[in-house]
Parts: sequence; structure tokens; C-alpha cells
Amino acid sequence: MKDFAADPSHPRYESLLKRHILEGAAEKGMLAGSALIAHGRGEAYDYLIGEQTIDSAMLATKHALYQLKNAKNPVISVNGNTTALAGEDLLKLASLLNCPIEVNIFYRTAKRMQVLLNHLEEIKSKLGLNVEILGASPDALIPGLEGPRAKCCQNGIYSSDVILVPLEDGDRCEALVAMGKIVIVVDLNPLSRSAKMGSITIVDEVSRVAKNLVTGFDFQEEKLEFPFDNDINLQLTLKHINEFLSDLSSSVD
Amino acid sequence: MKDFAADPSHPRYESLLKRHILEGAAEKGMLAGSALIAHGRGEAYDYLIGEQTIDSAMLATKHALYQLKNAKNPVISVNGNTTALAGEDLLKLASLLNCPIEVNIFYRTAKRMQVLLNHLEEIKSKLGLNVEILGASPDALIPGLEGPRAKCCQNGIYSSDVILVPLEDGDRCEALVAMGKIVIVVDLNPLSRSAKMGSITIVDEVSRVAKNLVTGFDFQEEKLEFPFDNDINLQLTLKHINEFLSDLSSSVD
Repeated sequence: MKDFAADPSHPRYESLLKRHILEGAAEKGMLAGSALIAHGRGEAYDYLIGEQTIDSAMLATKHALYQLKNAKNPVISVNGNTTALAGEDLLKLASLLNCPIEVNIFYRTAKRMQVLLNHLEEIKSKLGLNVEILGASPDALIPGLEGPRAKCCQNGIYSSDVILVPLEDGDRCEALVAMGKIVIVVDLNPLSRSAKMGSITIVDEVSRVAKNLVTGFDFQEEKLEFPFDNDINLQLTLKHINEFLSDLSSSVD
Repeated sequence: MKDFAADPSHPRYESLLKRHILEGAAEKGMLAGSALIAHGRGEAYDYLIGEQTIDSAMLATKHALYQLKNAKNPVISVNGNTTALAGEDLLKLASLLNCPIEVNIFYRTAKRMQVLLNHLEEIKSKLGLNVEILGASPDALIPGLEGPRAKCCQNGIYSSDVILVPLEDGDRCEALVAMGKIVIVVDLNPLSRSAKMGSITIVDEVSRVAKNLVTGFDFQEEKLEFPFDNDINLQLTLKHINEFLSDLSSSVD
């Protein structure tokens, strides 16, 4: 961290900044042991899409926004990495949607839950937003999961019809789909179980997604084509990565 | 870590085991803040080569072994991640080559150096090997680098003609090449600066490479073709990844 040079002209400034934020979040106790490794995997996949929002991701983002805006009980589920990287924009989105945010972590400890809840409450009060932040007192269980991973809030995840779950574990993603919800996944790995399982999968970096959801909130919905085919959209993403690598390896045949 | 299930039948057992080892190493103070993120990037790239030693990597490994065996002053440079994942096999390799191992970390602190040196000394004594472990008292500087990153040992890295530097930073790799050394890089990202800069780049996971170097130590050198072209070999690696992804995205045209 001491070596982070805040030089926005560096070609990989955004990536280095996110790494810096994550290392800081780890020091504050916001992250589980495997969170930095997960972030590294994300960095590698992000590199393969050029560290940008590609067309297939933007299309998925628009469909996600459509579903969130037209939901009866939308909810935004956040874990440690998501809170650190995109907490502010997701609070703004929750405010625009008038829906709750629920802290929902895979390796649940009371201490880490509290650090994350405090972090979100601080941002909320700094921005002067009126958003319900859930997770402190789980009172429901996601069917099909065991132990603390099943815990959630009745007024949040449990009763939601549309859920935005960035960086979600495959098992939990599957359990949420099995509950009949529209599950919006954000995952940089287009081959992950969550990516394949989601109703709408946005293969993009979580802070870019959160920003796109907020800045694009009033996009022209009538231009969207239905139904959205998540499998086809994932294939388009793979095709994009494939072409990127193909250009790089084109000198050998 | 508590959630690591030691089930060797799990399809991703090896990958999960390495993650587990790295998390343990972080807890022991062996790693810098960015080390877990770097490991995660490696995991993602490893996934793209099928978590196996591909042909181009095995070819580079054989050329690396040839150079190490025919060197006047070979040396093995290790950082935190390398020590945690491949310390044992690299000590065995050093014993076979009768060369020193030098602990050489990017974010150098006295405490972390000591933890790593102790870790290697413990393995060495457990295996009953006679290997010189350097790094405690750097007495030379790598030209072209500033601050603690330039530090190295006269009897190790400084005077080496062939150096194995797994998971090395791009700047340091460049500085070692500029010293006229044959630099053997181990990096899962075929597009990294180190990968492009190395004399011989092995795009493979460091513990697999270390094992291949030890188990293949007496391979038939006369079958190797010279000169080794690192750029062509990297292109073949990209082609391999490309074909892997192409198979996955083939249903969209």
C-alpha cells in the first residue's frame, strides 16, 4: 500500500487504485481471507476484456436495470469486496430504486458484519441518503443452504423478487435462482458457476457496473429487446475475449 | 481457511489446496499485502491453460533446466509466494544444481525476510539438504533499481550468470536482463512484462514448474533444439489459450 503512486496518468491507474482500496479494506477487517485472491482473479479476467465495459456487459446492465426498476421488491446484496469497491454507487442506486441494501457475506462473522454495516452507514450519512441497510439481524433462511450461509433478512433478500448479487458464490446463486427470483449476477469470469446460473449476468468490474447503473438509471427502456438470453450473451462475451487473444497470437499459425 | 475441505477427489482440489497454503502463509507473515491478489490473477490464468503444464511450458522448462545445469553460477531467487508454494522442490533443485537460493522480495521488510529465511531453513533441515540460503545480509545492488528493491547478495543473484526468478516484478526482471544474465521467468500471465522480458519464460504454475524441474532433472538434453525462441513460445501459449476459449465460444458466430 505504501507503494501506491496516485498518478492518474498511469495506464493502469484504475486497476491499481482498486487494488489499493481492497488492501485498505483488508486492513480494516472488511474482507475474508480469500477475498484478495478473488479480487486477483477478477483483475486477470478484467484484463482480458480490456478493463472496460464491453457491449455484451452494457446490454446485460440495461436489462438488469429494467428488471430492478420494474420489480415489486428489489434488493441489492453486498459482500466485503462489493462494499469496498462499489458501496457508494450501490447506496445511490438503492436510493434511486427505493430498495434496501443487505450485507450478505459468505464467511459470516459478527465482527466483519459490523465493520461492513458501519462502513455503509458512514457513506449513507455522508451522502445524506435514506436507504434501509439490512443484515445485522437475519430472521430468515435461504432454502437449500446450510449453516450461516443460509441466513438472510425477511424484508430484504428473502422476500425479494429481483436481486442484484455482485460477486456471489455459485451455491448461493443457485439457491436464490431456485427460490424463483430474477438473479442479477456481476462476475468478471464468464465461465463461473454464478455467471452461468444467473438470470442476467453482467461480465464487468463491479465498480464500473455500479456507476453504469446509477448514471444510466434513466435510459430509454423501450429500445430493449425481449427476452434477454443470458447464455447467448455469455457466448458473446467469450467471443470478445477470444478475439482479443486471437489478435495477440495471430503471428503464429 | 476453516472451510478448506481436504477432499482430493474434488475436481479443483489442487487449486483449492494452493489457495489454502497461501492463506496460511499470509497469516504467518510470509506475504506482502498484494501477494494474495497476485495469486488470484495467477489462478485465473492457470484456469485458462487448464491447470496443467502445457507443451510450450514443458519445452521452456527443459530449456531452463539445460541452462541452469550448464551455468557457471546458477541461482534460484524466491519471494513469498514462491517460498510458500514451491519452497521444498526449489530447495531440492538447488541441492541438485549445487547452487544457492536467495530470498529476494519486492516489499522488503526485515521481519518478513526473517520469516521466509526461517521457513526455508526449516524445510532444509527437515529434508537434510546442504544448500546455501542467502538474503539475510545483502551486500550488492542490482544496477538500475532504486531503494531496497536493488538489494541482493554478491555470492547469489549479483554474480549469477543464469537466474531462475519465479513470479518476478517487471522492473526487476528488466534490470536482471540488462546485467547480461540468462533470466528464467515463471509467470502464468503470458502477457506480463516479465513474461515478455525473460530469456526463457515458463507459463505455468510455480509448484508444477518446481516439481517438473526436480523430477525431470536427468532428461535427455540432446533432444533439445537450439536456439530457444521465447517470443515464438509465448505466441504458442497464447494460441493454446485462444483455442481453449474458441471451443467454449464456438456456438456463436
